Amino acid sequence: MSLNANDQCTRNDVYAAMCPCRDMLDLLANKWSALVIGVLEPGPQRFGQLKVRLEGVSPKVLSRTLKRLEEHHLLTRTVYAEVPARVDYELTELGHSASAPLKHLRDWVEANVLSDGPA
Amino acid sequence: MSLNANDQCTRNDVYAAMCPCRDMLDLLANKWSALVIGVLEPGPQRFGQLKVRLEGVSPKVLSRTLKRLEEHHLLTRTVYAEVPARVDYELTELGHSASAPLKHLRDWVEANVLSDGPA
Repeated sequence: MSLNANDQCTRNDVYAAMCPCRDMLDLLANKWSALVIGVLEPGPQRFGQLKVRLEGVSPKVLSRTLKRLEEHHLLTRTVYAEVPARVDYELTELGHSASAPLKHLRDWVEANVLSDGPA
Repeated sequence: MSLNANDQCTRNDVYAAMCPCRDMLDLLANKWSALVIGVLEPGPQRFGQLKVRLEGVSPKVLSRTLKRLEEHHLLTRTVYAEVPARVDYELTELGHSASAPLKHLRDWVEANVLSDGPA
């Protein structure tokens, strides 16, 4: 059997440039995605709450990150008919599932980066 | 006790903008880093071998990724006095340790991305 581009897409190999896995890896193997998903683990949050937790993120980058996560079915965005409008972001089942490897990565980083010394 | 920027750097919190953790997370939560470290798990590889395995990576991006991983002590670069020069990249102990959460992430992606259907 020979492989063509379509076949490549069915073998779920992050090393294959044509595989949709690569796109998902690009999304999740991303600092801001890893941080957003961590904040949403306990439950829904609003944009402003996320912005405060992710120190240093710009509104533009946070919006883009949330939009990509929504497009990949990792979170849902719910607009409530309130004044001012309330918008909640919540992990989907897939998003909750993705939070395990990302927590593993965040925990590894926190455990293995040498601090600058005792406070 | 109040926190200043230096204190922040000692609490190893990826959510803190000033923490060196954030820099390490930025490096590891990166598609190409996750793929490079995976390829180097079994043993040293040359630049050309890495380039073939990481389908679609440009030489410039691969060089930059390898340089950052070396600067963060995740891999070593060894130049052998051969003609043509042979350059090997090899994971350090820290790099091998980092490969576990990254494998977790790659495996999750491969298991959870829906392929386009059977070949």
